[in-house]
Amino acid sequence: MLSKNKISFIKSLHQKKFRDEERLFIAEGKKVVEELLSSNFVIRTLVATADYLAAFHDTTLDEIPEILEAKPSDMERISALTTAPEVMAIAEIPATVLDVTMLKGKLSLLLDDVRDPGNFGTILRIAHWFGVDQVISSLNSVDAFNPKVVQAAMGSLFHVPVYSIGLEGLLSELKSDPELPVYATVLGGENLFTAPLSKSGLIIFGNESMGIRTSLQELSDRKLTIPSFEGSEGNRPESLNVGVSAAIVLAEFRRRG
Amino acid sequence: MLSKNKISFIKSLHQKKFRDEERLFIAEGKKVVEELLSSNFVIRTLVATADYLAAFHDTTLDEIPEILEAKPSDMERISALTTAPEVMAIAEIPATVLDVTMLKGKLSLLLDDVRDPGNFGTILRIAHWFGVDQVISSLNSVDAFNPKVVQAAMGSLFHVPVYSIGLEGLLSELKSDPELPVYATVLGGENLFTAPLSKSGLIIFGNESMGIRTSLQELSDRKLTIPSFEGSEGNRPESLNVGVSAAIVLAEFRRRG
Repeated sequence: MLSKNKISFIKSLHQKKFRDEERLFIAEGKKVVEELLSSNFVIRTLVATADYLAAFHDTTLDEIPEILEAKPSDMERISALTTAPEVMAIAEIPATVLDVTMLKGKLSLLLDDVRDPGNFGTILRIAHWFGVDQVISSLNSVDAFNPKVVQAAMGSLFHVPVYSIGLEGLLSELKSDPELPVYATVLGGENLFTAPLSKSGLIIFGNESMGIRTSLQELSDRKLTIPSFEGSEGNRPESLNVGVSAAIVLAEFRRRG
Repeated sequence: MLSKNKISFIKSLHQKKFRDEERLFIAEGKKVVEELLSSNFVIRTLVATADYLAAFHDTTLDEIPEILEAKPSDMERISALTTAPEVMAIAEIPATVLDVTMLKGKLSLLLDDVRDPGNFGTILRIAHWFGVDQVISSLNSVDAFNPKVVQAAMGSLFHVPVYSIGLEGLLSELKSDPELPVYATVLGGENLFTAPLSKSGLIIFGNESMGIRTSLQELSDRKLTIPSFEGSEGNRPESLNVGVSAAIVLAEFRRRG
């Protein structure tokens, strides 16, 4: 059973401040925990209902140092999601330091203040599908280890390296490296489908309502836009969702690749 | 002010049964109501806070037969969303009958049991962006006039015709019309980027976890798959979200167009 202290501790990990202090995060639900178990991430504690443990307490779980059984009502208390899961893992946030030299020859996504956890998680899943080498998010983006990002990423967070740094500093440092073109996805840029694209480089996606900050656009080499198409009905939507845009842009980079 | 009866009536429209009976739906929030006002849809009633009415009660609203002021607490009671809006419209569901002869020369999306309102709305927005002529959803899909679909579609529901019918009947009727190829997006099909694609036809997307029913796959002419790409890290995700898949597939159809 879960102690009161343990419940408070797990709940504290809903907040970025405590995740940063403890270097721990929570991953909820069977599917996500399964992906975590198959990754290189280190699980400290597994909390699960008696039913889950009866069904899954096999050799895979034997390597986890702490396994705690919890009542469904306690799962509800510690969950950050609308529907409490049968199982939750507490795992270590990997220590990552971005070495800019390792960006060469790679395809990287830069997220400028993507705030919605669902969008961030969706983008990680897309990045994983298209073999993006890393996702680099601005300091004002939602935290990649936010429980709702972890949920939406459906395990892809454990397979695509994610860094959180100041993007202006990064782009200034990389500026004018011909081997690392920087693409900004904006409204009113070049047609994605006819613009020249390289195999490696950095692609920036912006905030849900504000887009990419002007300062970052100025540090980019090429501005790309997904064209809309006229159908039988009139006016087009103003924009596409950032996850949808990332999917279309990455598909095009990889198709040409 | 809103009467108790009016509040009950508006809340009843959260349910498909009453929407079908009344042939009315609700659209919430400034942005969505603005799109509704600029469309051909007929608004019966507008409910808004005093602040909204003070700012927006101009000539556009003069054509609406009934305008009601509501307290923020009443807006909360009638809203189907997590955050109550400043404004809500009650509008007529257009009477639509699908005439299969009008599918010729057009690009149509078929949704086989897409259940998540967010996904359905996102797909409508993408369909609108790429000038899709109509979206045809199976009878077990979420209702297009569900308040959460209306919200997620961000106005695109008012610009792309949506039909709800039995897809097996439709495909059987169309079967072997060489001018109307039917594409099914599945796992393990032909590479989307190298398969021949036509300018018009029907593209089927399936349920979030089950994909497209086998019976419908058998009625399709061509099975398409979005290829995943190997990066520096290992195993790919099992699948992409249905909205993301629709975006990539439609972009490819239109790019070739």
